[in-house]
Amino acid sequence: MLAERTKNLNSSFIREILALTQAPGVISFAGACQTRHSFQPKHLRPPPWLRIRIREQTSISMVRLKATRSYAGGLQITWVTQKVRHPMSLSPPAPNRGWISLPAACSTSDGVAIEAPSYLGAIQVFNAHQARLHPVPSDHEGPNMEALEALFKQKEIRCFYTVPEFQNPKGISYSPERLYELAALAKRYGTWILEDAPYSALRYRGDPLPSLQSLLPEQVVHFGSFSKTVAPGLRLGWTSAPDSIMKSIIKMKQVADLHSSNYDQILILEFLRSGALPRHLERLKQNYRHRLEVMTSALDQHMGDRIRRSDPDGGMFVWVKMTKEMNAMTLFHQAVERGVAFVPGEAFYTDGSGGNCMRLNFTNSQPDRIVEGVQRLAELL
Amino acid sequence: MLAERTKNLNSSFIREILALTQAPGVISFAGACQTRHSFQPKHLRPPPWLRIRIREQTSISMVRLKATRSYAGGLQITWVTQKVRHPMSLSPPAPNRGWISLPAACSTSDGVAIEAPSYLGAIQVFNAHQARLHPVPSDHEGPNMEALEALFKQKEIRCFYTVPEFQNPKGISYSPERLYELAALAKRYGTWILEDAPYSALRYRGDPLPSLQSLLPEQVVHFGSFSKTVAPGLRLGWTSAPDSIMKSIIKMKQVADLHSSNYDQILILEFLRSGALPRHLERLKQNYRHRLEVMTSALDQHMGDRIRRSDPDGGMFVWVKMTKEMNAMTLFHQAVERGVAFVPGEAFYTDGSGGNCMRLNFTNSQPDRIVEGVQRLAELL
Repeated sequence: MLAERTKNLNSSFIREILALTQAPGVISFAGACQTRHSFQPKHLRPPPWLRIRIREQTSISMVRLKATRSYAGGLQITWVTQKVRHPMSLSPPAPNRGWISLPAACSTSDGVAIEAPSYLGAIQVFNAHQARLHPVPSDHEGPNMEALEALFKQKEIRCFYTVPEFQNPKGISYSPERLYELAALAKRYGTWILEDAPYSALRYRGDPLPSLQSLLPEQVVHFGSFSKTVAPGLRLGWTSAPDSIMKSIIKMKQVADLHSSNYDQILILEFLRSGALPRHLERLKQNYRHRLEVMTSALDQHMGDRIRRSDPDGGMFVWVKMTKEMNAMTLFHQAVERGVAFVPGEAFYTDGSGGNCMRLNFTNSQPDRIVEGVQRLAELL
Repeated sequence: MLAERTKNLNSSFIREILALTQAPGVISFAGACQTRHSFQPKHLRPPPWLRIRIREQTSISMVRLKATRSYAGGLQITWVTQKVRHPMSLSPPAPNRGWISLPAACSTSDGVAIEAPSYLGAIQVFNAHQARLHPVPSDHEGPNMEALEALFKQKEIRCFYTVPEFQNPKGISYSPERLYELAALAKRYGTWILEDAPYSALRYRGDPLPSLQSLLPEQVVHFGSFSKTVAPGLRLGWTSAPDSIMKSIIKMKQVADLHSSNYDQILILEFLRSGALPRHLERLKQNYRHRLEVMTSALDQHMGDRIRRSDPDGGMFVWVKMTKEMNAMTLFHQAVERGVAFVPGEAFYTDGSGGNCMRLNFTNSQPDRIVEGVQRLAELL
């Protein structure tokens, strides 16, 4: 009796893995979570008047207006406004980030180009909406442009979903050249770009990239998130898009949940207004930068030439490819028995490849635990 | 460049009306909101430890487990557990209540039976998912069974969406006989029932009805909500369904937003645990019962035989049909100029009928304002 669109749905692989690995003592490189100890934005608490406000229903557009009034000229949201044009149209983040735009940008059976590998949550959302997925290989500078253009020529591709900075799962970022090439290509073929940018605020070295939206504002839907920087449990983010499609996105958002919890929206807005965000971000980046260095050093020291790894400038993940043809799923089960968890690479592909790859999260564990976990993995290799 | 599924989407009519009518001084019978003064659940505040918890992502099933542990045997959630089988599988309420189940229960182009009139938000959700809507007329005891059976015979109807108690917009409830007839009919034809029950806790007189779910558990998806009783702004409710479809609903929920804000879920759970809900509900019902009486008395006194009205035992709405063929939309614009707002009846039909009807909310305004608003409307008739 179940409907067609549920048939494409695999249960969240990461969720199942998380369940397996949340036993006490397990060193988890699996999720995209912050550690308990590194992540306590002290000012994230309801203001005294908030208890009353939750009686009212507030549309996202009303919150946007309120925010514009309260925050006009405020230094503290410079970070948000740098990259987006509608900074305060809050809406739930991943995978809802994807969801609210997908129905607007894509019809059932539309062609959607994605990177290979790509964000698992987005793949699930596209599958749930029965989009036809066309994976495009990527290297350390971004997607392969020849492959992408060939795809645009051969198929009717409605949109290209991409995470240009500190990608999930590879941790890599586009080179500036590749960004400009993509913007030009999308413009030539009139293809929408869904620019997912949940990690962009988490840069630990190198120069910031321009957003794709800044290069091609009329064809880019840009998603930002507070889940990776402020509070994952609140499920809040923002969407920025040309007015032509923003109207549809807002309608789909209304159909999806009428509006995001205004209690949570006000929590975040008051946190931004408190001025605590820049310092909080600095502390977070300092902490994560160190963990990234610890993990890459440990990988190089203990695994050496038995692996190739990505070299991220930010974000939450290192991507590891084993040079021997080892099966990461087999390794995963052995590793869980040794008290270490990661996400096997094939979860991020739609065609079963990635079998000898692993996604390792470095933000969730203390540095000494990272070293310990990498050592245990190395013993298994 | 917009996708097919956005074309069916009319912007929320009620939202536009609310915008028109939120000027200060307007007596609004339009929304389904609580008044500021009547609605202050004092215990709805975060417990001291909650600030820390929001760092973690929590799936709805994890919250369910936690809740089961904490609330086992707790008197205070008797109210919730009376009618549902999975009381703590929290998920966002209307229209998301509808949304999460619709993709699971209905494919694109599936036939969906609805009452005529029916809840506007549900109609929008069904339209967004391109379901084929088949309205069935209803009287003061519920939907017309002959019409419903004829429809089940003629068309392939996947599900019947209904609000059996204190319906939106009519305020009417099924008779017990009609409830049993519907359960038997759905069973005979193997049709899913989507039982939307956001108002069921707001009964001001008469005996409680059994839920459709209690009569036909294997074919009913039951939706409950905290929006009409505790806090509309949090967008939280619950879904209860047979295991066969619940798995799909949970997957679709994960695709939609991964999980509801766990901060808000804990707010509600702690409110339930505080034991304050029964007393809060009693106060709310006492308040609303009085407002309902004030409104129906005022309607009878000032409009008399120029209208027919529904006679609700609970909920938030009175449905008014003007006996002269007056156009409620024309009246609406005149009324807004006189400082009174309501929702014209045609918003709740898919075929343009209901043009001489109005939905009047009685929970949003103080009693003296209700009388004043009805008097102003009467002068316009």
